[in-house]
Amino acid sequence: MKLTVGIDIGGTNTAIGIVNERGEVVNKISIPTPSHGEIEKYIDEIAQALNELSERVKAEHRDAEILGIGVGAPNGNFYKGTIEYAPNLSFDDIVPFVDLLKKKFTQYETIVLTNDANAAAIGEMIYGGAKDMKNFVMFTLGTGVGSGLVVNGEMVYGADGFAGECGHTMLIPGGRKCGCGIDGHLEAYCSASGMKRTAIEIIARDNAADSILAYKTFNELDSKEIYEAAVADDKVAIEVFEKTGHWLGMSLADTVHHLSPEAIFLFGGPTAAGDYIFKPTIESLNNHLLPMFKNKIEVKKSELNLGDAAIVGASALVWKTLV
Amino acid sequence: MKLTVGIDIGGTNTAIGIVNERGEVVNKISIPTPSHGEIEKYIDEIAQALNELSERVKAEHRDAEILGIGVGAPNGNFYKGTIEYAPNLSFDDIVPFVDLLKKKFTQYETIVLTNDANAAAIGEMIYGGAKDMKNFVMFTLGTGVGSGLVVNGEMVYGADGFAGECGHTMLIPGGRKCGCGIDGHLEAYCSASGMKRTAIEIIARDNAADSILAYKTFNELDSKEIYEAAVADDKVAIEVFEKTGHWLGMSLADTVHHLSPEAIFLFGGPTAAGDYIFKPTIESLNNHLLPMFKNKIEVKKSELNLGDAAIVGASALVWKTLV
Repeated sequence: MKLTVGIDIGGTNTAIGIVNERGEVVNKISIPTPSHGEIEKYIDEIAQALNELSERVKAEHRDAEILGIGVGAPNGNFYKGTIEYAPNLSFDDIVPFVDLLKKKFTQYETIVLTNDANAAAIGEMIYGGAKDMKNFVMFTLGTGVGSGLVVNGEMVYGADGFAGECGHTMLIPGGRKCGCGIDGHLEAYCSASGMKRTAIEIIARDNAADSILAYKTFNELDSKEIYEAAVADDKVAIEVFEKTGHWLGMSLADTVHHLSPEAIFLFGGPTAAGDYIFKPTIESLNNHLLPMFKNKIEVKKSELNLGDAAIVGASALVWKTLV
Repeated sequence: MKLTVGIDIGGTNTAIGIVNERGEVVNKISIPTPSHGEIEKYIDEIAQALNELSERVKAEHRDAEILGIGVGAPNGNFYKGTIEYAPNLSFDDIVPFVDLLKKKFTQYETIVLTNDANAAAIGEMIYGGAKDMKNFVMFTLGTGVGSGLVVNGEMVYGADGFAGECGHTMLIPGGRKCGCGIDGHLEAYCSASGMKRTAIEIIARDNAADSILAYKTFNELDSKEIYEAAVADDKVAIEVFEKTGHWLGMSLADTVHHLSPEAIFLFGGPTAAGDYIFKPTIESLNNHLLPMFKNKIEVKKSELNLGDAAIVGASALVWKTLV
C-alpha cells in the first residue's frame, strides 16, 4: 500500500495526514502552529507527530510504504523549498522548510513544498476532477483568493516559484483596499471576506434594515450566513452573490485570455452556495470572453473534500514529483 | 547552410522570407494578401513566390538546406494549423492553412503555424533577447495589443491553441470600446491606436489648442508623431506616454501575478520612443506588483528587427518545433 504524507501549515494549526493513492486520508493528526517563531522546536514537533502517525498507520496496514512528504504553506516556494515572508506565520522572513525536514527525515528522498493554492490544484490533478486535463486553473476562495495554474500538464511556478497570484490581479482600479496594500484587487471583492464587505456595503447603500444580514456585525458575518440568507430569499444576500459572480467572472475572463484553460475549478467555502455563486460567475465569464472562448470553458466545483483538501493537495505534490 | 522559411500573413500583404540560423533574412519577397476570399489561388501564389525565392537562395548558396515553413497569421491556431475567424482576412471562417500548404510542399515535413504575437515570442526565444529564458512574456504594441507567453520553456497555447490574448484583458471596467466588442480592454488603451485615442482625449479635455498634435486629424495621428511631439516637449504627447505607461504597467502586473516571468519584452512601433514609454511602464509595473516581485522583472525592448520580426518569428517556429 503506497502512501504519501501531506502537511498543511495554517496560521493556527498544522495538519499532518497520511494519504492513499485514491486521495483518501488514512489517518491524520493536528498540532498548533507556534505563534512565536521557534522554528527548530516546531520542526521537532512535526517530526514527533509524523512519527507517531506513521507508527499508527503501519500498525494498521502491514504493507504501508510511505513515499515522501508534501507540504502546503502560505508563500511556499517550490523551487527553493522555502516559506518566504508569510504574513500569518511568525518565523523568520525566509524559512528553509524542506531542508529542515530533510535533516529529520533522511529516509524520504522526496520532500517537496508549494503554496496552498498550488497544492489544491495538484490535488485536483492527481485525485480530483482534473485528472485528464493538461490546461486548467484552480481558484481558491477563502480568507483570500488563491490560484494554481496548470499549463501543458505542469504547474506554473514561474521564474522564481511564486507564480499564480491571481487573487492580486486588478479588478477595479482605485477600488477596495486589498490586504497586500494595493487597491482594487480581486481578493478584496471575491474572497469570503470580500463577500462580507459587499454585504455590508449593500446594506449601507440601501439602508436595508429588513435584511437578515443587518442583524449581524461585520465581524460575525461569513459566507455561509450570506448563503443561508440567500436561500431565505434575502435580497441583500442574493445581490452579494450576483455581484461576487459578476466580478469573479470578469476576472476569470482575464485568466482565460492569458491561458485558455480547459476548465476552471473553484474551491472553498463560498462554492457550497452552488448555483447562487456559479450561475452569475459563469454568465459574467461568458459575457467577458472573446467569441472564440465563449461557452467553451467549464467552471466546476473542486472535487476535493473541503476539510481534507489542504492535506490531500500537499500529499499529491509527492505523486506529481515522482511521476 | 540550414535555413527556414517564415511567412507573415498580414491584412494587406503576405511577406515570405528565408531566414538563417542567426535569425537574419537571407532573401524575401512580398505578395498581396487577396481581399476576396479565393484561398486556393492564394496558396498557389504563395507556392509560386516561395519556389522562386528558394531558387534564388539556392543559386546564391549551394549548400542551402530548407528545413521547413513557419507561418504567422492573425488568429492562427498552432494545434490545428488553421486560421480561424480572422477579422482582417477575407477567407472562410476556418482555413486549414497548414494542410493546404502541405499539399503544395510535400518536400517539407515541418510546416507549422501560430498567431503573430506567439511567432514574435518564439523569435525572441530562438534568435533574440530571450535565448536563455524559460519563463517570459512578449507584448506586441501595434494596431492591437498581442501577447505571447512562455512557461517552462514552452509556448502557452492552452487547451485550444488560442492562449495569450492579453490585449483583451480588462483594464478599466466599463471603459473605452475595444474592437472585440467588450469595453475597457488593454488594447483600447495601450495599442498604437489606443495612444492616438489618449492624445485626442487629452486635447479635448484640456482644450489644448497649442499642442502640436492639435493640428493633426484623428486619422492622421500615429504613435511616431506622438513620440516626435514628446521629444519637442509637447505636454499632451508627454502625458500620452505617461498614461500609456501607467496603464500598461498596471496590466503587466496582472500578467506577472499570473506567470511570474523573468522578463517582459515589448515589441512594436511605440517601443521606439524608448524612455518615454519604458520609464512610466516600469514605474507603474512596480507600483502594482506584490512585494515579492517588485523590481525583479526586467522590462526590455524586443531585440527583433521591427521590419523583419514577423517573418523571423514565423521562421523561428520551425526551429522551435524541430528541437
